Amino acid sequence: MASPATGLGEGLNSEAEPGPRPAPPVSVAAVLPAGGSGERMGGGTPKQFCDLSGRPLVSYTVQAMERVSWISDIIVVVSQENVEKMKYIINKFGHKKTTVVEGGMTRHRSIFNGLDIFVKSNNSSQLLKKPEVIIIHDAVRPFVEEDILFKVVMAAKEHGAAGAIRPLVSTVIASSADGCLDHSLDRAKYRASEMPQAFLFDIIHQAYQQCSDYDFDYGTECLHLALKYSKTNAKLIEGPPDLWKVTYKRDLYAADSLIKDAISQQLCIINNNINEDASQVGFLLHGTLKNHVKVIKSTSTSVSENDNHLQNILLEQCYNFVCINDDPNGLQETHQLLKILENRNASVLYSVVLISVHLAILENTFLSSAMQSLTKLAKEVKKKNILLYGFIVDYRKDNLKLQETIDLAGSLITALIRDRNPVFAGQILVA
Amino acid sequence: MASPATGLGEGLNSEAEPGPRPAPPVSVAAVLPAGGSGERMGGGTPKQFCDLSGRPLVSYTVQAMERVSWISDIIVVVSQENVEKMKYIINKFGHKKTTVVEGGMTRHRSIFNGLDIFVKSNNSSQLLKKPEVIIIHDAVRPFVEEDILFKVVMAAKEHGAAGAIRPLVSTVIASSADGCLDHSLDRAKYRASEMPQAFLFDIIHQAYQQCSDYDFDYGTECLHLALKYSKTNAKLIEGPPDLWKVTYKRDLYAADSLIKDAISQQLCIINNNINEDASQVGFLLHGTLKNHVKVIKSTSTSVSENDNHLQNILLEQCYNFVCINDDPNGLQETHQLLKILENRNASVLYSVVLISVHLAILENTFLSSAMQSLTKLAKEVKKKNILLYGFIVDYRKDNLKLQETIDLAGSLITALIRDRNPVFAGQILVA
Repeated sequence: MASPATGLGEGLNSEAEPGPRPAPPVSVAAVLPAGGSGERMGGGTPKQFCDLSGRPLVSYTVQAMERVSWISDIIVVVSQENVEKMKYIINKFGHKKTTVVEGGMTRHRSIFNGLDIFVKSNNSSQLLKKPEVIIIHDAVRPFVEEDILFKVVMAAKEHGAAGAIRPLVSTVIASSADGCLDHSLDRAKYRASEMPQAFLFDIIHQAYQQCSDYDFDYGTECLHLALKYSKTNAKLIEGPPDLWKVTYKRDLYAADSLIKDAISQQLCIINNNINEDASQVGFLLHGTLKNHVKVIKSTSTSVSENDNHLQNILLEQCYNFVCINDDPNGLQETHQLLKILENRNASVLYSVVLISVHLAILENTFLSSAMQSLTKLAKEVKKKNILLYGFIVDYRKDNLKLQETIDLAGSLITALIRDRNPVFAGQILVA
Repeated sequence: MASPATGLGEGLNSEAEPGPRPAPPVSVAAVLPAGGSGERMGGGTPKQFCDLSGRPLVSYTVQAMERVSWISDIIVVVSQENVEKMKYIINKFGHKKTTVVEGGMTRHRSIFNGLDIFVKSNNSSQLLKKPEVIIIHDAVRPFVEEDILFKVVMAAKEHGAAGAIRPLVSTVIASSADGCLDHSLDRAKYRASEMPQAFLFDIIHQAYQQCSDYDFDYGTECLHLALKYSKTNAKLIEGPPDLWKVTYKRDLYAADSLIKDAISQQLCIINNNINEDASQVGFLLHGTLKNHVKVIKSTSTSVSENDNHLQNILLEQCYNFVCINDDPNGLQETHQLLKILENRNASVLYSVVLISVHLAILENTFLSSAMQSLTKLAKEVKKKNILLYGFIVDYRKDNLKLQETIDLAGSLITALIRDRNPVFAGQILVA
């Protein structure tokens, strides 16, 4: 399975990116129908608004579209009662080029409303520039990549319509009137129709204008409308497995884990080596953590606002920091890093994990006043989506014992970063 | 979505159970094809052997079948190189009435081998008693419930064949030779064919005996064989969403979360109230934890091997214990409970979480010798799949402050139980 990382922000997996892609030679916008009621989740919050690591699902999908430079506008279509909620989400997470449109009673009516924004002005918003190609993508498929978007757009330009497909996971069968098997379909000849899909704007808009009430009320497949009303046979594009639709509660669990996987892949170690012991621990930790995650930076200079290197790390969307403190009872480096993270608004989209490492001899008093201030500090910064954990390394010069301690520390730090559980923020772990 | 809990052991969700179900009036056995190579997981370990909370996926599916009293035999069909591995799994997790059979090159050949064990004796095993009805179920669908098994067996008895179906999540489309949309199917008229399926033994066995090489090599659908070779139109039964097949990495994440949900639903508080403060904390904790999980027992008697109530709790498959220790520096109650858990082999199928709670004034020395022995003890019992965590309650008589502490403790304990992360075993959390 392809890594979901790139779907979560260009920089997250920059090594894997094949360099900047060309933009398609057409103007492109996107419509995200997000009006579903979430029946299949067993009622409650519609799935597009369900929380995933502190952010509603729909925000991840908007983000996946937003980062594609050649998509000019993103239209999110929500039911009337969710218009304000959606506007709040766009504002809170700083989504650009995104417009909220009120949907209709069914999926097709909602998509039609989304398209209409480009041809009819309405009270709440100006007329947007009509694109040559329009992408239609579900708000509940957050892991869409630029690559498949590019492919469907190019195919739509050539064929008028295009859609992503996947192999069938289960055999599809037809039943007879009495609920018995009539026949089963040959899996090799059929495909599951997924999203994204793309259309020449006029083709799909014209199809919707001619669409019967029956199609509006009971249909779900845009490719079908393009075929029926615009005589356009869509080009089918094999998509990656990540395109799957968040449908059941288990899909939310899966999406949450994939997001956590993606943002826990790299970390930055701040190792300010005035103190020789602390420096050694930082060096050893680096060696161990390399086996678990990509260590993108190990600074050995003092943390400061003017540290260009650190600023670049933040630009590369690193969300995990291990800060080795020189002073076993002090939090100076941790404080400085927190200040930079806060100034940069580094934790708007994802929580930032900061592990403050201190050397100590465990027989001594443990919860010193410094440790108590860490707990207090953690409570403060948690409000800003920064998860601060304390970490004591039981430092002894015995090399064998030290390596064992460092190995344990590596596992614990990796687990803290992977789980990023806000409940444990302010706790002090010991290795 | 139905809770997966009941799929994980009868006792887990006993309140929700509609009382003992009748057994179907036929003899029943089950064949679990488990020969897949796991291509869709991106190579590596085949998915049926992937680890889920410390146990291979296939073991959960065997367990789901095993707990159904009226299934007499479970045949797990694995590829030749996994026969020993599967036998080891059956032995390690104490699965009863389960036989390993070597599979063939394809799914259908493997199922046929599984059926043959009832009619041909072979070197490695005795002839098993041929059942009237045979269930066929995928090893990678661990959340199967007795209810749907009962329904397909009853329908198979009446119709000769039966299978679980689900609504289609995506539209199914047929493509033309040039990779364009030919037509889309009306989602209302088709269903996804899932597992379990059940057959009168002779009907499916006869179908396999007549099966062409093409069907053996390229087919996947047993219902199709019953129709083609035995002229039997299977009865289709609407199944619950939990029947889904673990196919991609994301499905493993989802399954892992559902398993953790199921085993974190109830806990037992051991509150040995000689010390008045400890007793109060135990009482308040009970009040808070009730909001998160089902507290099935709060014992206030001393923990002992002869405590019938505690033995019953273990029988009810409770995997989570909070032990309030009387002595802030002692682990007496924790030790006693550990002894009982070990004697009962309580952690064979799932890890057991034990949270050892101690009252302390935080200004005092923290990592007392008792706390160090907890860390050491945790390392010992972790080998036996028992996850021991230390927990300090910063006890002050100020009521307002105490309630805040208790609320935090409730959230932390709930998170420890839900995450059951072995890496954090031996850590000491503070509220």
